[in-house]
Formats: sequence, C-alpha cells, structure tokens
Amino acid sequence: MLWRIPLNTSISSVAHIRTVLAAMPGEDLAAVAVWSAREPQLTKPAGSLGRLEELGRWLSAWQGRHPPRLDKVVARVFAGNHGVAALGVSAFPPEVTVQMVANFQHGGAAINQLCTVFGTELDVVSLELDRPTADFTQMPAMTEAEFVAAFLAGMDAVPADTDLLCIGEMGIGNTTPAAAISCALFGGEAALWTGRGTGIDGAGLDRKTQVVAAGVARHGGQAGLDILRCLGGRELVAMAGATLAARLRRVPVLLDGYVCTAAVAALLAECPGALDHCVVAHASAEPGHRRLMEALGKTALFDLGMRLGEASGAALAVGVVRAALACHTGMATFAEAGVSGA
Amino acid sequence: MLWRIPLNTSISSVAHIRTVLAAMPGEDLAAVAVWSAREPQLTKPAGSLGRLEELGRWLSAWQGRHPPRLDKVVARVFAGNHGVAALGVSAFPPEVTVQMVANFQHGGAAINQLCTVFGTELDVVSLELDRPTADFTQMPAMTEAEFVAAFLAGMDAVPADTDLLCIGEMGIGNTTPAAAISCALFGGEAALWTGRGTGIDGAGLDRKTQVVAAGVARHGGQAGLDILRCLGGRELVAMAGATLAARLRRVPVLLDGYVCTAAVAALLAECPGALDHCVVAHASAEPGHRRLMEALGKTALFDLGMRLGEASGAALAVGVVRAALACHTGMATFAEAGVSGA
Repeated sequence: MLWRIPLNTSISSVAHIRTVLAAMPGEDLAAVAVWSAREPQLTKPAGSLGRLEELGRWLSAWQGRHPPRLDKVVARVFAGNHGVAALGVSAFPPEVTVQMVANFQHGGAAINQLCTVFGTELDVVSLELDRPTADFTQMPAMTEAEFVAAFLAGMDAVPADTDLLCIGEMGIGNTTPAAAISCALFGGEAALWTGRGTGIDGAGLDRKTQVVAAGVARHGGQAGLDILRCLGGRELVAMAGATLAARLRRVPVLLDGYVCTAAVAALLAECPGALDHCVVAHASAEPGHRRLMEALGKTALFDLGMRLGEASGAALAVGVVRAALACHTGMATFAEAGVSGA
Repeated sequence: MLWRIPLNTSISSVAHIRTVLAAMPGEDLAAVAVWSAREPQLTKPAGSLGRLEELGRWLSAWQGRHPPRLDKVVARVFAGNHGVAALGVSAFPPEVTVQMVANFQHGGAAINQLCTVFGTELDVVSLELDRPTADFTQMPAMTEAEFVAAFLAGMDAVPADTDLLCIGEMGIGNTTPAAAISCALFGGEAALWTGRGTGIDGAGLDRKTQVVAAGVARHGGQAGLDILRCLGGRELVAMAGATLAARLRRVPVLLDGYVCTAAVAALLAECPGALDHCVVAHASAEPGHRRLMEALGKTALFDLGMRLGEASGAALAVGVVRAALACHTGMATFAEAGVSGA
C-alpha cells in the first residue's frame, strides 16, 4: 500500500510532489459502511449529536478502520522566519519566533497546556530559524530546493502510527504570507485577506496590505505549489508536507487557523479532494480565515475568537474528536438498552 | 456567608424563592483582579485565546478564588414526564423517559461517554416519572407544592464542593414546555419558538405549535417563576433550582440546550443578572434556542448541530473550560520565558 512505503525518499522536486498528490488514497468505504450500520442503532434520536456524528464517520473513513482509534494523537508545530518580517508587518519582533520555540520546548506556551489536557503528544520542528525566507516583494520566498527540503521536513514529522494529527505554526510575520497565498489562490483585493495578526496598528495594517499586494502582483497566476513556494515560508510548506504525508499514512488531520489553512489550500489548488481528510478545527479571529474556509468549502468546528496559531485551535478540537469517538463506540444500542424507538 | 447556610431548609413557597433570588451573590471582584493581573503577562498576544480567556475570568469571578479549580466537575441530568406528551408532540413514546434513565444508570447514553472523556461526575435525578405534570393546555402543569418540591430537588442536587456544574434534562415531550415558556417570557408567535424536537414530522409540528399557543394563551402574562410552574415540567423546575443553588454555592454553571436555557430563563425574568454565573455551552439545532439566547444576551461556546439534551452540550464544553483553566494557570509569563513583548 502506498502509505506503507518510505514516504519521501525519492521526492526531490515540486513535479514529484504533484505525482504523489495525484495518487492520494480516498475514503475507506468499507470502514464507513460499518460506521453507518452502527450509528443509527445508538440510543439517541437520529442526527442528534450533529457534527460529533460526522467526526466519527470522518475518523473511520480516513483511518480506514472501524472502530477508529485515538491512542496516538500528535501535534506538530512548525516554526520558520520570514524575509517580509523586516518590512514591519508584525507587532512583535522576529526574534520572538526562536524565543517561542524555546517556550514550547520548556512547556510554557498555550499549546503545551492544550496538549496536556487532551492527551496529545507535542513536537516542535524548527526550520532554519537563522535563515529567513527571502522578501517575497523582491523575489520568490524560496528556491525549489528550499521548498522541497521544508516539504520533506513536514512529511517526516508524521509518525507512521499516528491516529490523529494536529498541525500548526509559529513564525513572526506569517499572517502576511497566509494573506498573500490566499489572495493569489482565490483572488480579490489584498485588503480582503489581510488582518491585524498578533495586533498590529492601523498604519501597520496598511503597510502589511501593501506588502501582500506587492507579493501577489509579483508571484500570482501560478499553480498552487508554486504560489506556496514564492509567497510562503518554511513552516507553511512543512504544514502542506505533513498534510500530504498524513493522507498517505491514513491519518485524519485537524487544521488550525489562518496560516495553516492557507498553507494547505495550495494542495487543494493542485488537486481537488486533497483536503478531504482534513477538518478545520476553529474559525480564527483573523478575518481572512472565514473567507478562506468558504473558498475551501469547509466549516470550522468552533469559533471562539482565537488567533494564536501554535496549533492551539486544532489541539482544542482534539477534545471534541475524543468525545465523538467515545459516543460512537461507547453508547448502548436501542436493543441493548431496551429503549423504544421513534 | 449566604451560600454556606443550608440551602433549602426553609424554602416552602415561590415567594421565598424570590427572596433568595434577590439576595444572590455577585462576581468576586478580588478574584477577577488577580486573574486580570496575570492574563496579560502570559506568552501570547493580548486577547489571542479569545473566549478561553473569558472562561478563565468567569471561573475566577464565580468561584470567588484565584486560581480557580476544576477538581470536582459535576453533571446533573433531571428527568421528568409531561402531561402534554399525551397530545402527540414528540416522535418518541413517553415510556422512553424512564428507559433512558435506566440507560444513564447503566452507562449507555451519550452523556455517560462525554462525562467519562472530560472527567465529570454524572448523577441522574428522576422526578416522579410515574406522575406526569398536568396538561398545561387545560390547567397549570404544577401546583405550587409540586413546583417547590421539584425546585428543591434541583437545589439539593448541587454538592457544596462542586467546582463546575453541567445541567441537563431528559423528558419525552419537553421541548414543548421549553417553547411555551420561551414564548410566554419573550413574546412572538408560538411557531417562532416551536421546533421538531427529537424529529417529529410536519403534522406533528403543527400539532405541537397549537399546544404551545394554547398553553401560552392560558398561562402567559405572569411572572417568570409562575410561567415556569404553569408551563414547565419537574425537570425544568429542578434545573432552575440547581442553577440558583449553584449561584449561592459559588459554582459556575454550563447550560445545555433549548430546554435547559428556557427553564433558567424564568430566573432571569424574575431577577436581572440571575444567569451571570452561567455560560450557554452550545447552540442547539432546535431553532428556538438561538432566539432564546439572543433574548438572554448569551452567546454559545459552540454550534455543532447537536439537539440531544441530557446535558450533552454542557458536558462537551467541560473540555473547553478545562483547556481555558490550563492555559491561564500553566502558561509561562513573558518574563519567565524570556520572550520579547509587542
């Protein structure tokens, strides 16, 4: 089976990534059939658990087994630095990226607490933090070799026995590439996709919008992965790689907020259905995220006004997914419980 | 302190409940001040955890201590039967109430699984299931003595050392009293408040709407607790009692869906601020719930299309509240982590 082979040994080009994308496995319909046979027997009115029911089906379909398992839930936070950060697009200085990576490693960030609460293994993958990507207003953010290296780092970060993957990022300035990628992929004015990120002021927002527009003017009109290479950053590329590796390994994915969703949108632009194994965990307070989800045909599980990144929204959704699985596997049937039907 | 006295020994009338309501404690501003001093120091952009931040403040304010605790999280499901169930307002027969209570006791329902996932103690309180309330289209659903007994049963169900309370219900037919109470309290056509509940068909919905309208025509125009007595059911009254007891004991409350919110709305109609210690966990798929939350000035934590009752939405929200507390108490400050500020 495709997802049992070493995942990335032979990937050396964007063209090869496209070949792998085109051969992605789909839903496991046999597992879905078993899920579908059990769900209506459970002691509740049909459909009354709403999206919890949908999540149970999704786990079955993409893990390719019934019952699905959540023994090994994994969060991967990818960190990168950005040439455009020097243009004053963020409220925080670029050195915060490496400082926050240390904070993750010492257990002090929000994502550490969220992973602890919901039984999720956290790992942080730093991607050449001392070598920011190029300023995309001047040239492509990455060469093809840099892009492929980051993509493979993302693929390598998904253990083979993962049952559910949360992906997220840390990178000062990275809502700027997120906005630029979204704008390049789906069109519209740069201002529609550009928000205040960590909390930049009005003048900063104007500057950021101009940076996004300049990047799109220079690099728009290409295929998805080329847009991701020219306008993205290493942590965005790695999230796309992890998402593809998860598909090959039959691991359902919880996407985090704006930066994460923008990164993987490049996969969808290359190949319809590329994100069918992904659920968007939460709607970010960053306004472009809502527009982006609409373009992707996705509805977030919840909207709590979060805009932190770090996979924080995805990690929070692990609780909901655990709840969904527990209901599907643990509930009694009408027959078992002696409860009358409708 | 009021909440340290035996809660219900002297309550024997609706008038006395009103006296207690009028003397409810408010937020603990000292605890909030400690919360407010710590939150901006944590290693994240200000406000970036959205409603998780609000939940940490809420726990502090209503537990009256900092840091708040979640050692004992309790779910209480109240079960009752309804005279109006004989009028064909539900897709399920009335005997399902007692059958589902047995299912709760044997661990087979959705609420059992949800409580297990999030570390919540579940107890089910059956309220005279073999003695349905009266048909409210003909007379008040309960006498004052019946009302007070159910209210006290709800108050008694809240242990003194509870850190967070989830309330919910089971009662075939009980979206009909929920709709009638909401309509009587907030006005508008009965059809605006009446939904399909467990899944009644179109003809059933018409019948149910007529029942709601008849109840409101007969019993509307009274004060909140009288509306609850005349149009409610024992499990609704008990939820109102539990919510008041929680306030007196300094226990924050997670409200469940439509029936639960309608029941406690009667408290708010009596006394502004009566629900300030309550968060609505989820937006029910039952359409009246959204309208009701608007009337109450509440926004649900999430909207997952659930419509099961049983405190299922509240129990699911326990995960989010645990996450909120873990972030507030466990995160490093900027100074501790050596992270630069904005």
